[in-house]
Amino acid sequence: MPVLLIGTLDTKGDELGFVRDRLQEAGIATLVVDVGSLNPPRIVPDLTREEVFRAAKTTLAEIQRQGDRGHAVTQAAAGITAIAKQFAQQGQLDGILALGGSAGTTIGTAAMRALPYGIPKIMVSTLASGQVSPFVGVRDIVMMHSVVDISGLNRLSKLVLGNAAQAMAGMVRAASETRRRAEADPKPLITATMFGVTTPCVEAGRAILESHGYEVLTFHATGVGGRTMEALIHDGLITGVLDVTTTELADELVGGVLTAGRDRLTAAAMKGIPQVISVGALDMVNFGPRATVPEKFRDRRFYQHNENITLMRTTPEENDQLGKEIAEKACAASGPTTIVLPLRGVSAIDAEGKPFWWPEADQALFQSIRNWISSDVKLVELDLHINDPAFATAITQELLTQLRKG
Amino acid sequence: MPVLLIGTLDTKGDELGFVRDRLQEAGIATLVVDVGSLNPPRIVPDLTREEVFRAAKTTLAEIQRQGDRGHAVTQAAAGITAIAKQFAQQGQLDGILALGGSAGTTIGTAAMRALPYGIPKIMVSTLASGQVSPFVGVRDIVMMHSVVDISGLNRLSKLVLGNAAQAMAGMVRAASETRRRAEADPKPLITATMFGVTTPCVEAGRAILESHGYEVLTFHATGVGGRTMEALIHDGLITGVLDVTTTELADELVGGVLTAGRDRLTAAAMKGIPQVISVGALDMVNFGPRATVPEKFRDRRFYQHNENITLMRTTPEENDQLGKEIAEKACAASGPTTIVLPLRGVSAIDAEGKPFWWPEADQALFQSIRNWISSDVKLVELDLHINDPAFATAITQELLTQLRKG
Repeated sequence: MPVLLIGTLDTKGDELGFVRDRLQEAGIATLVVDVGSLNPPRIVPDLTREEVFRAAKTTLAEIQRQGDRGHAVTQAAAGITAIAKQFAQQGQLDGILALGGSAGTTIGTAAMRALPYGIPKIMVSTLASGQVSPFVGVRDIVMMHSVVDISGLNRLSKLVLGNAAQAMAGMVRAASETRRRAEADPKPLITATMFGVTTPCVEAGRAILESHGYEVLTFHATGVGGRTMEALIHDGLITGVLDVTTTELADELVGGVLTAGRDRLTAAAMKGIPQVISVGALDMVNFGPRATVPEKFRDRRFYQHNENITLMRTTPEENDQLGKEIAEKACAASGPTTIVLPLRGVSAIDAEGKPFWWPEADQALFQSIRNWISSDVKLVELDLHINDPAFATAITQELLTQLRKG
Repeated sequence: MPVLLIGTLDTKGDELGFVRDRLQEAGIATLVVDVGSLNPPRIVPDLTREEVFRAAKTTLAEIQRQGDRGHAVTQAAAGITAIAKQFAQQGQLDGILALGGSAGTTIGTAAMRALPYGIPKIMVSTLASGQVSPFVGVRDIVMMHSVVDISGLNRLSKLVLGNAAQAMAGMVRAASETRRRAEADPKPLITATMFGVTTPCVEAGRAILESHGYEVLTFHATGVGGRTMEALIHDGLITGVLDVTTTELADELVGGVLTAGRDRLTAAAMKGIPQVISVGALDMVNFGPRATVPEKFRDRRFYQHNENITLMRTTPEENDQLGKEIAEKACAASGPTTIVLPLRGVSAIDAEGKPFWWPEADQALFQSIRNWISSDVKLVELDLHINDPAFATAITQELLTQLRKG
């Protein structure tokens, strides 16, 4: 199986050729893909730019006719992403290595982000000593700083590119051993979602699950936490999900800063793995410092968590919509799914006498879930607060029951 | 020679042990260093935290007595940096790998930034999908995203840590071959410094040097460009320096945004390699958009390069100081050093009829250099503008003459 080597061969052909030659000397099969669109490639690719743009449902001629660099980059990224995913799905991919500046990094990492965890991914980039989160996202992408521009082979670039090739060779050679060790782990993985205001529940649940031989990965509901969890589930690494803290849905709906996007709460449903869902912290939407809260929310109810975090109470109307969304996403699940409602409050500050206590808002959430849920999904209502120890015990037992059946 | 493995063994001992075991299985020697300061290490280190803090000229007891986490991290970073540098200087270091969150990343990358290019450097970090420039700096540090917290070995962390170990093993195994290829490059490296306003000079000089069999690495005088060049010279990778554009000194002196720090224009002097220095773009200090220029500069002369770049003319007084600094730094050189002055203007906008034309300011710069220079340094004054083709020819010939003598 080859390592995909990706670059714009009109500008970085010699450099990609150097990496290819080092990998081949190391006995690693390679497949060079051209993602350039301007001048002719400086080395002969195994997959041409014509094929890349075709995979993006356009043509090189069309791209060249438009002459729009940003569009060319977007289409090249779409094309190589489609190609890389197809290789990976067919088990035909040992690794992926790209090199480039801003365009090449955009194109190469787009393909890498679409691939499962564990497949070696190296991006040699002029941008690797800066803000890399748009490129790395939630993935195990290795960013390697090129130090100097990737333009010409010289003593320094040969050191950097040589190390990139050998790092890839090392990972590929030991890939089956790396996988075996990871999979030999006797403990199946459970993911759980937490916020400060749901910590007692999740920590108690985690202890119970660990005592039953599971490993629990806890994700903070910060947007990136939820996204990472969904990605892990997609990749088939997760055995069950204790989704206590679905609050990121509120940030997505209302416009808070900690959204995990529209696909939150979909991966477990799609993969058909056991999941227990609750409504933790759906009383709040997150903003930064008070001054950053949009003017349109002026009349809402706020709680200043600290000077950098401002929480805004969700309304009955918003909770009605959130309940519908949760029910619908749960109903779409192909695996065992339970929703558990804590009728006495969904967060540490949503309890009698606390700042976000608003029974009508919580009721709107609960009632909407009852209205929209189908009989495929089990609904459990508990006259408890989310952080009552009995609630943690109940949801964890529910998940353990699902797991035993599965 | 071993690979240094660095982590806080009170919190990440198991994880570092996993990496160590994989490297040892791959036949790579390891040396585990504990940089923690709280609880006892979870695995036995080869170098203890006591030794690390001693290398920072403090003690573990003192660190624990103070109980200041930030201070502990700073001291651990200083200790491991001193240790790593010593290993590298003795040729006793095959690679360096660290893992951690914010503290571990601060500590591990501090040591990596102190090491020469080419020595394999891998940082497995929870922060590797964010702003990494303080960690990577101008170095060839590989940042590997841990995806999940580095707390416990599980299916996912074993994939990521296993790949990190194998990437290091691959680089170390082929290290001599990687070095051989880099050093086998028949073309010695020259570095040159450029700005948009000195491009004609540098491009012409580059063409001449390339025609004489040199490879020219051009750095933009953006602060990071100058810093990278100084680091490369320090590491012994550079044969000669055409330092046309010393403008970063003005940003450092006056307070512009593109400073390369106080050590700019020192590495070539310290290493004793041939250098030709000019005063390109010393007519300007760089700021961002006009609104970001500090109020104290209100009455100065400005030129709006574009909406994001505001240039400020240096004054005769500032130029007098800059001339002294350049002369002093040149005089400190142990190798052949020439300063070449373009008497008709130092940048594209410092010429008769152009916005930064101010003969008194340029004269202050030139006269200060004449005043402070010693007889060890050759001074060449040309009645030319910096971008006159004859100026590029003259400075390049000067460097070629130095190189032939060397």
